Amino acid sequence: MPAWSSSWQLPDQIADVLPSEARHIEELRRLFLDTARSYGYELVMPPLLEHLESLLTGTGEALDLQTFKLVDQLSGRTLGLRADTTPQVARIDAHLLNRSGVARLCYCGPVLHTRADRPHATREPLQFGAEIYGHAGLEADLEAQRLALDCLKAAGVTDLMVDMADVRIVASLLAGASLGASTLAHIHAALAAKDASELGSLLASLSGGISSAAREGMMALLQLYGDEQVLLEAEKALPRLPGVHEALQNLKWLASHAPDVKVSFDLADLRGYAYYSGARFAIYGQGAELARGGRYDEVGAVFGRNRPAAGFSLDLKELVSVLPPRPLKAAICAPWGDDAMLNAAIARLRANGETVTCVLPGHENEVNEFDCDRELALKAGQWVVQPRH
Amino acid sequence: MPAWSSSWQLPDQIADVLPSEARHIEELRRLFLDTARSYGYELVMPPLLEHLESLLTGTGEALDLQTFKLVDQLSGRTLGLRADTTPQVARIDAHLLNRSGVARLCYCGPVLHTRADRPHATREPLQFGAEIYGHAGLEADLEAQRLALDCLKAAGVTDLMVDMADVRIVASLLAGASLGASTLAHIHAALAAKDASELGSLLASLSGGISSAAREGMMALLQLYGDEQVLLEAEKALPRLPGVHEALQNLKWLASHAPDVKVSFDLADLRGYAYYSGARFAIYGQGAELARGGRYDEVGAVFGRNRPAAGFSLDLKELVSVLPPRPLKAAICAPWGDDAMLNAAIARLRANGETVTCVLPGHENEVNEFDCDRELALKAGQWVVQPRH
Repeated sequence: MPAWSSSWQLPDQIADVLPSEARHIEELRRLFLDTARSYGYELVMPPLLEHLESLLTGTGEALDLQTFKLVDQLSGRTLGLRADTTPQVARIDAHLLNRSGVARLCYCGPVLHTRADRPHATREPLQFGAEIYGHAGLEADLEAQRLALDCLKAAGVTDLMVDMADVRIVASLLAGASLGASTLAHIHAALAAKDASELGSLLASLSGGISSAAREGMMALLQLYGDEQVLLEAEKALPRLPGVHEALQNLKWLASHAPDVKVSFDLADLRGYAYYSGARFAIYGQGAELARGGRYDEVGAVFGRNRPAAGFSLDLKELVSVLPPRPLKAAICAPWGDDAMLNAAIARLRANGETVTCVLPGHENEVNEFDCDRELALKAGQWVVQPRH
Repeated sequence: MPAWSSSWQLPDQIADVLPSEARHIEELRRLFLDTARSYGYELVMPPLLEHLESLLTGTGEALDLQTFKLVDQLSGRTLGLRADTTPQVARIDAHLLNRSGVARLCYCGPVLHTRADRPHATREPLQFGAEIYGHAGLEADLEAQRLALDCLKAAGVTDLMVDMADVRIVASLLAGASLGASTLAHIHAALAAKDASELGSLLASLSGGISSAAREGMMALLQLYGDEQVLLEAEKALPRLPGVHEALQNLKWLASHAPDVKVSFDLADLRGYAYYSGARFAIYGQGAELARGGRYDEVGAVFGRNRPAAGFSLDLKELVSVLPPRPLKAAICAPWGDDAMLNAAIARLRANGETVTCVLPGHENEVNEFDCDRELALKAGQWVVQPRH
């Protein structure tokens, strides 16, 4: 077996992004950052590596398991490779910007996961996201949703749908019980799987106990998914707790302000929202979940500054994988030469946004990977662009 | 001491990039990728994590020491965080594209270093680079240089200077001696430091021995730096070995074809060119070394496909730190509201490239971080943009 036979194999669920997909990702990256900028969101670039405790404080066990760890030779301390960017942006809002008013921030960069979220997902998503700090009102939730939808529309997704829920409903129903993190995780999993028998036995086993109204409310959540009718049904089926009432009112307001898009609800779905504190949303299109967001007021608390926060994030690699590929813009082939007029003509075309590939000496008969539909040719002493023959 | 007091401290020589600098980096990133594209270079995105042996094979000890290592839970194998992107791009050229002709590739993404290159440098550079595979002639070296210079000119660097050398000169002079990697590293360091006494004793201690002509040539290298005159002096001072002669002829050709830019030589400087095999260059401007490149024909050999290769790379974070900051484009403030006409006016302005920040209810008297020089106001039933009062 030659020595190189394994040198080019990548770890499982880690992949190169090759030219056509990379170009598509880069186009969407610019589109999204420009759209966020048009809303007043400023770009920040947090580092890939941080002290583990900064990355994980307050974010829950799931993120800890997802985070690669290594040792810093300079300090001997344990560092983590970020598995999520939101805690870093909260740190930046809390400490570096330290603004009293509203701060709007966005980011785009890789995150790394020890294990992928789903069986065929990448362990190195390219996360784009936007966050608004300092406003507790629903207007901020709505702005995050609208920005996410505008980005996905601009990317060419046509069948967008917003699915909403609110983590305060389950939190209010379980407020009476003293729950360990592991039991809570099992309850969330049973809710997400709509597994009534599992949920029933988990609730029955709670040591602190919850009221029968709360128990019935929890079981009712399993049926509370679908269109806006769900909110009316929820008002009847769920106990009249203040947290439940406020959550339902908020969802109603958000749905009534949603831009021209289909809205649905799934009041039992809390997957992947470890640090969320209020309304949350997922955006679907092209048969996949494309973006995820909501309110997470507690996320900056560990950095000493508990600011209201709402936002969303998405994975550009996942998004590009479900969108149709884009055609490559045709290029111009030019001969290689010392001629100053030739080189000036090439420079002019490039400055005008054309791709001009020089055919290097000895490579005249190769097939060019760019689709060269034109060529630069000398006609009556002038370099001119003509169709390629 | 409150619990958060250390949660926001970053590891040494790791930093957040805040909005004004991040915006500048993003602008240059687009400019560079577009310039590379105009030359026909296709974007690729290799992963941050790879099996350690793929990242390090053939790249030398220096890169090994610079590479963070961690364990893959899925396979139990050791992974490395890339400290350089070129070996990854060589792997892509060799195995994934597998083209017979010329391949032009570019990339832009973070790399991580266990120790920074220089005392105040970041350990997380943002590396941009371009590479041309499949052409052994000097035209490829020249294209890499021209592209690097075009990028830096477009970034606004005005005092550009190219410094050239060729690793084959030292390699030819030392060809007779049997050298360990460590001795060779010491010789390179003595050459870079222009330390004649250290170099003299290192050469005297070589077990295999080298000819007195080669020894005198090595010592002469310490004086061979400066303008084109250096090449004439080198022809007299260095022994007439084929490798030396070819290197000097190549440097002469490259200098004569260099675009309108000052050229210098330092035939003793081999720092940081572990895998280079021919001519190398560094580009200086704004008082700093801004880009580095050359020929590295051997870099793909470990992947089973030894293709000629030339290219360059630069660190966008370093570059932005030496350039004057760019002014923030002024924005438009708009009130928040349900009014469909207002929201349509905001959407129109955003689609036209304006930044429109909505003032959320209750935040009317805050100072906006964007410089809002205009505002959207209702005048006679129409939403119009007017100077901000």
